[in-house]
Amino acid sequence: MLIKERLFTPGPVPLPPQVIKALGQQIIHHRTPEFKKIFTEVREKLQKLLKTEGNIIMFSSSGTGGMEASVLNFFSKGDRVLIINAGKFGQRWKEIAQTYELKVVDYEIEWGKTYDKERVLQIVSEFPDIKGIFVQQSETSTTTYHDVSFLGEVSKNLEDCILVVDGITSVGVYEVYPEEIGIDILVTGSQKALMLPPGLSVLYFSDKAEKRLSKSNIPKYYFDVQKEAKKQKEGQTAYTPAINLIIALNESLNLILDEGLKNLAERHRIMAEATREAVKEIGLKLLSESPSNSATGVYSPAGINADDLRKELLKIGFRVAGGQDSLKGKIFRIAHMGYFDFNDVIQVIAGLEMALYRIGFDIELGKGVKKAQEVILKNS
Amino acid sequence: MLIKERLFTPGPVPLPPQVIKALGQQIIHHRTPEFKKIFTEVREKLQKLLKTEGNIIMFSSSGTGGMEASVLNFFSKGDRVLIINAGKFGQRWKEIAQTYELKVVDYEIEWGKTYDKERVLQIVSEFPDIKGIFVQQSETSTTTYHDVSFLGEVSKNLEDCILVVDGITSVGVYEVYPEEIGIDILVTGSQKALMLPPGLSVLYFSDKAEKRLSKSNIPKYYFDVQKEAKKQKEGQTAYTPAINLIIALNESLNLILDEGLKNLAERHRIMAEATREAVKEIGLKLLSESPSNSATGVYSPAGINADDLRKELLKIGFRVAGGQDSLKGKIFRIAHMGYFDFNDVIQVIAGLEMALYRIGFDIELGKGVKKAQEVILKNS
Repeated sequence: MLIKERLFTPGPVPLPPQVIKALGQQIIHHRTPEFKKIFTEVREKLQKLLKTEGNIIMFSSSGTGGMEASVLNFFSKGDRVLIINAGKFGQRWKEIAQTYELKVVDYEIEWGKTYDKERVLQIVSEFPDIKGIFVQQSETSTTTYHDVSFLGEVSKNLEDCILVVDGITSVGVYEVYPEEIGIDILVTGSQKALMLPPGLSVLYFSDKAEKRLSKSNIPKYYFDVQKEAKKQKEGQTAYTPAINLIIALNESLNLILDEGLKNLAERHRIMAEATREAVKEIGLKLLSESPSNSATGVYSPAGINADDLRKELLKIGFRVAGGQDSLKGKIFRIAHMGYFDFNDVIQVIAGLEMALYRIGFDIELGKGVKKAQEVILKNS
Repeated sequence: MLIKERLFTPGPVPLPPQVIKALGQQIIHHRTPEFKKIFTEVREKLQKLLKTEGNIIMFSSSGTGGMEASVLNFFSKGDRVLIINAGKFGQRWKEIAQTYELKVVDYEIEWGKTYDKERVLQIVSEFPDIKGIFVQQSETSTTTYHDVSFLGEVSKNLEDCILVVDGITSVGVYEVYPEEIGIDILVTGSQKALMLPPGLSVLYFSDKAEKRLSKSNIPKYYFDVQKEAKKQKEGQTAYTPAINLIIALNESLNLILDEGLKNLAERHRIMAEATREAVKEIGLKLLSESPSNSATGVYSPAGINADDLRKELLKIGFRVAGGQDSLKGKIFRIAHMGYFDFNDVIQVIAGLEMALYRIGFDIELGKGVKKAQEVILKNS
């Protein structure tokens, strides 16, 4: 019988029909007034998304390329940096920083937890020469939200420090306004809440960060922010851009801005809360102590391998993500980012109940669904 | 009245309907057997395209990213390299090599000409420690073909040298078989003869080049060939791949392999020859002394700015490229790469005649078209 596979993975995420339509078009040339107009519109819409009139550039790369650009352009060899390392992507910040010979103060945090404010203050008082604080606003591997505002305050009070935020799974989920929060560099990627295929990364940088550009002594070519920023202000790119992704981004940004950023964040908050309350009601335990609204990580019940449960879910029609590295087989993750509404949450919770039932977990069907319904009705 | 704009630019190039259809689809997840199957098929088809069972990897980046990866992974700081610098893209090899502190022997060649074999032999006898020779097989800025076989021989006879070829506008136009030719590293990009939107680069490397991987002392992260090669052999990528481009590449490689590589190269040869003969018949002069079959560069007639002529052509329905840097306003370029047949050549030549007529050039209409027809009939 027909089973429609539904993606509930934290990237890639389902594409809206408007985006699919924009992708499935004949190509246009990038050195044309037509493309320049679209490119300029996209930049303006990205500025609206981040409530800034500041610097935003795009690279043809996955989000990791954007992360690498943040290190290559705004730091120099030997710079001391603090890494909030609370998961696979915190680890990635550390790897990139070490690749380019930055001195890393590695604040390792148990997976599923967020940072301790006191500990951060201790670290910066011990190392007042810290030139950058690196963090994930939403650490996808552990579905954990890290408060970036506090780090913005800490960074501001240091002599010459910038806050570098991986917003790959937070932009488009939360209201992320770097100038209000004190974020100096913000990276995001196309295949998350921007609802596109992978292949495009977006980088915002503050005026304070901009001053670093001419000072950085790390060599770069493809990911040269100065070169791109100059070109992109003129509506062009240094190298051939991911034309069809940028055209599709114009469509997805229309969807986002038409919904409104407050509504967008509220929708994600409700979807995530409904999911969390439902899985707790079912009797399962959340992975994160500081859960993100991008995705919800859940421990598989005792005696049930999370990957077996995921296979059952897939048979029913839901693709959810597993755990990475040390969490493999222990947890599963349900994404909320992007083109989802409340009914999608109901559907995946019902599916989860059925999968648990099939795999032999003692469950009262409909209990989680009812809880999700209640949360949705109360909040909307 | 309706004017359909036709792209005759050397990248991006028109997309075949099969590719457009593949692009305009809902996304699938990359960590699935379904995607792994497609990814593995694409790798096998790329191997067929290049007649090799060797190493091929893909990056989510424009072609320039692939060029950068060639330098980052197979060389070390201080390595001496010879750059065949005969145009904008030769210049790019030089810039990338210098960015990463390679010692560049810059063999600068007048734009529109190819290298002199004797001069190359002189250079390598003067610098026997050359570790790499960098060249464009087809230098797009000057529409010039450089013989890479000779450089393959030169490279083989040096103690520890590899031949690095930018095949961005030659792969899919010529039969490019790196193992037969002696190419150690071959880069190509999606938006050229592979008939896709930009955003994907492809890198082939020989066993000889592979031995360099562990020795290179240049830092890299996103463009780390060793990491990607290991992952991609297993049907995965280190970072989220450009999923929809890879799925579309499967389609365009089907088209290419179904036509057959000999036919494909022959078709491009005939289209390029027909174009060259036609523009000469019209009374115009070719830019290149060693013309490439990827695109034909033509001098605008005396007293006519090439960019004005291009505007006339665009009004008629043909977008051709202009000259870059020192050639700006002097030349125009008509591409032949990818989804073109003989009738497209006829059409653009007729359009060129009409544009020249309108701009006041003394021309006998139909003369160039007749010449193109003759070349096509004689060759097919």
